[in-house]
Order: sequence, then C-alpha cells, then structure tokens
Amino acid sequence: MNRAEPLSASPQSHPVTGTAYGLGIGPGEPDLITLKAYNILQKADVIAYPALEDGVSLARQIVDTHIPKGRTEIAIRIEMGKPADPIYDAAALEIGQHLAAGKTVAVLCEGDPFFYGSFMYLYGRLADAGHSVETVPGVSSMMACAAQLGAPLAAKNDVLQVIPGPLDKDRLRTQLGNTDAAAIIKLGRHFTKVRDVINELGLTDRARYIERATLDSQKMVPLADLPADATAPYFSMILIHRRGDAWR
Amino acid sequence: MNRAEPLSASPQSHPVTGTAYGLGIGPGEPDLITLKAYNILQKADVIAYPALEDGVSLARQIVDTHIPKGRTEIAIRIEMGKPADPIYDAAALEIGQHLAAGKTVAVLCEGDPFFYGSFMYLYGRLADAGHSVETVPGVSSMMACAAQLGAPLAAKNDVLQVIPGPLDKDRLRTQLGNTDAAAIIKLGRHFTKVRDVINELGLTDRARYIERATLDSQKMVPLADLPADATAPYFSMILIHRRGDAWR
Repeated sequence: MNRAEPLSASPQSHPVTGTAYGLGIGPGEPDLITLKAYNILQKADVIAYPALEDGVSLARQIVDTHIPKGRTEIAIRIEMGKPADPIYDAAALEIGQHLAAGKTVAVLCEGDPFFYGSFMYLYGRLADAGHSVETVPGVSSMMACAAQLGAPLAAKNDVLQVIPGPLDKDRLRTQLGNTDAAAIIKLGRHFTKVRDVINELGLTDRARYIERATLDSQKMVPLADLPADATAPYFSMILIHRRGDAWR
Repeated sequence: MNRAEPLSASPQSHPVTGTAYGLGIGPGEPDLITLKAYNILQKADVIAYPALEDGVSLARQIVDTHIPKGRTEIAIRIEMGKPADPIYDAAALEIGQHLAAGKTVAVLCEGDPFFYGSFMYLYGRLADAGHSVETVPGVSSMMACAAQLGAPLAAKNDVLQVIPGPLDKDRLRTQLGNTDAAAIIKLGRHFTKVRDVINELGLTDRARYIERATLDSQKMVPLADLPADATAPYFSMILIHRRGDAWR
C-alpha cells in the first residue's frame, strides 16, 4: 500500500498565484451557504460549476442571488454516458490558466465538496499541477434531510453508514444489516431495489423518504406511506434509524 | 416496531408563539456558520448553549463575534458523570417559558445539530410539549476535517461509515473491516484502542489524524507519523479511505 499523502495541497512547481476554492454551497436553500463561501464568492474573479449538457446547473441556480454581476463563468458540462476524465482535464487546464494569471477561482459544489462530490477530480488535478487549491466545507444534503425530517441521524455510540443505492442487493443487505443508522443516497432508478431490501430486513417502519430537501419542491413522507409503484429522483434519500424515535 | 413518526414538529397543544431553532454553527471557524443561522442569531431574543460545569462553552466561543449585545443567555451546564435527563428537562422548561412569552430562542449546536448532537434531547422535549421547533443544519466537523486534510470522504459508490471510538474492539474490527471509507469520531481516551485495530487491519497507511479542525489550535498528521504513546483530545478524528489517494 502507498502512504496516504498530501495533508495539504501546497504548490510544488508553480509560483503561488491565484487560488482555486471548492465552495460547499449547501443543499439547495440559498441561505444555507456559509459566510465563508459567500465572502469568497463575492471576491472571486471566475466562477466555475458542474452543468448538464445543455448548460443547466443546479449549483449555479442555488447561489444565483449571491453571484455578483459580470464575473467570468465556466460551465463544466458533464455528458451522460461519456468518459468524464477528458472533461475534468480540460476544465482543470482552463481554471489553471486563470490561476496562473493571478485570478481567484470559485468552484461551486452542491452540498459539501468532499462528500461524494465531483470537485475532488478538479482538486486532484489542480493540486498535482502545483496550483493553490482549498476546500471550503459545506452543509451536506444528509444533514439537511435530517433537519427537515426532524429525525436525528445518529447519537451517542451509534454507527452511521452512508450507503449508495447503486450497490447490489447482497451488499445493501450486508451494510444495512450491520448498522444502527443509515442514509441511503443516489436512489433514482435504484429506489425499488433499495426499498425491497429495507422491507426484507423489517426496517420499513423505521425509514423516512425525502427528496429535494430545502428546495421549494421538497417532498417527504414515511417510506411505508409511498405507493408500491413509487419512483424517486436522483436527489432523494432514505434515512433509517433502528431505534426509531426512541431518542425522544 | 413503532412507526417512524413526526416528519415535522408541528405544535399540538400550545398556540403557536415563539419558535426555538437548533442552529448548526459549524466546526469552529466562525465564518463556517450559514447565512441562515447567522440571520436567526441576529434576531433571537434568547440564546441557549451547552456548557461545562464551570460555564465555559465551546459553542458560545465559536459564535462570540456574531452574538449581538444584551441578549438573554441560557447556559445548559452538563455535569460529567451525572444523569443528563433532569438537566435537559429543566432547560426545556426554561426555554418553553420564553417561547410561551412569544420569544425566539436560538440553541447553539457545534457542527450539525442532528449529527451526534445533544440538541435532539431538547428538540424531542420541546416538540412533545407542543412548541414550534426547527433545526437549521450546519457544517459538520466530519466535512471540515476532510476539507482541511485535502482528503475526500467518499466518492461514487463508496460506503462511508461513521464509527464512534468508544465501541469495543470486536465491533470496531467488524465495522472497519466492512467499509470503503470511515470517519472514527470521539477518540479521546479510546485513541490507542482504535489505533491498534487500524494497525491489525493494515489500514494505518490509509489513515489521517486531525484534531480541532478549523480552529487556531488545529493539528493534522498521517496516523503513521504519530509517536506510539500519542494521545488524542475528544475533538479529534481519524479519516480512512481504503483506496488511499487513488482518486487522484
């Protein structure tokens, strides 16, 4: 095994010029951005963000009212089903040119940048190229979902597992069977499979479903109350706690 | 099993008067509070926070520069080794009196209120008494540690486990042996035991240690670089990822 290395991303080859910030902008409600991220956004010369092929960007929409007029913007367009590496290579190169020119670049990240976020791919590329790059943590959707549901994630000596929905049934069963609490993320087309496993384990009555937490379109409901043929968008989550509401 | 219930803490017996907010104030750096929590703090009539027996409160210190002068303050003094229930009963009663008088009460919570936070004990009591109570999610220390270390917590279909240090060796071994990534929290006097298990599992070279993330006294180092007799404070964490830095 290799040693876990860079504790910080200090520049190695470039002289220190501009800095790139991965800004956690929170789960959706514009005011759930931190003062720190907000302030960096105000002084950033360049603002970059992930976008769909057509240019629509949820991250950009979340902070729309916070972005000063007239900034240079870079939409990093991720194309479904195509390799992402060349896209991040190109984005890192473009951002790197701004940094070399002494500019400050803010990269918008939904939720928290390092919690299943795509910013890490830029972070690695920029740091490896010797640029100054910092991560500003943000409010994760997991915490926002718990707050909206009025359901604590974990307490005392609970083990909490974050489990992606795309895992196969066996893995889902193993992980869910061996924890006090769980947040099941990335549901989308895996929703029915996940729901079946929760049912098998007798945890349905301990499970809450929420989608688009803190956005106007938010929806939340006990999992047991969803119809059998319910579907879920990608931005949805199931929170489970084995003790139910015993903490009250 | 009982049904997982209250999706929201809507008032049941009291007329709607004041609201209590559990405010996630972030991991330590004052600007890692959200705009939302900051704004609620500005207009709150009463500010409550957990404190040690002598009245010292880390939560109060974190937001010291944000608190307007002349607010009513309630220090909820937790005494080590004594039952906490009567303390939360009394605090909920005192906060409830302010709410009944139409006041807004902000309860300060380090990190995020529902991520291993003590706010849930007040939340349950206030909601059950029919008061209006809301949780404002915050930046958790887990996300702040990852940002400071320059080490993503999890990516793609990784399972991420949050594991409290006080668990016994067998449980630690089981959980750590069955995950892609882990954040081991509440180290304190359990540090050596946790370190031994990480060593046994051959994960030491994948582990980073950090204490007091984002505070001036922050310290971080690869776990392997700590001396054999190192100790850890309560506010410390070990982050592990099985893939190491392969994401770069």
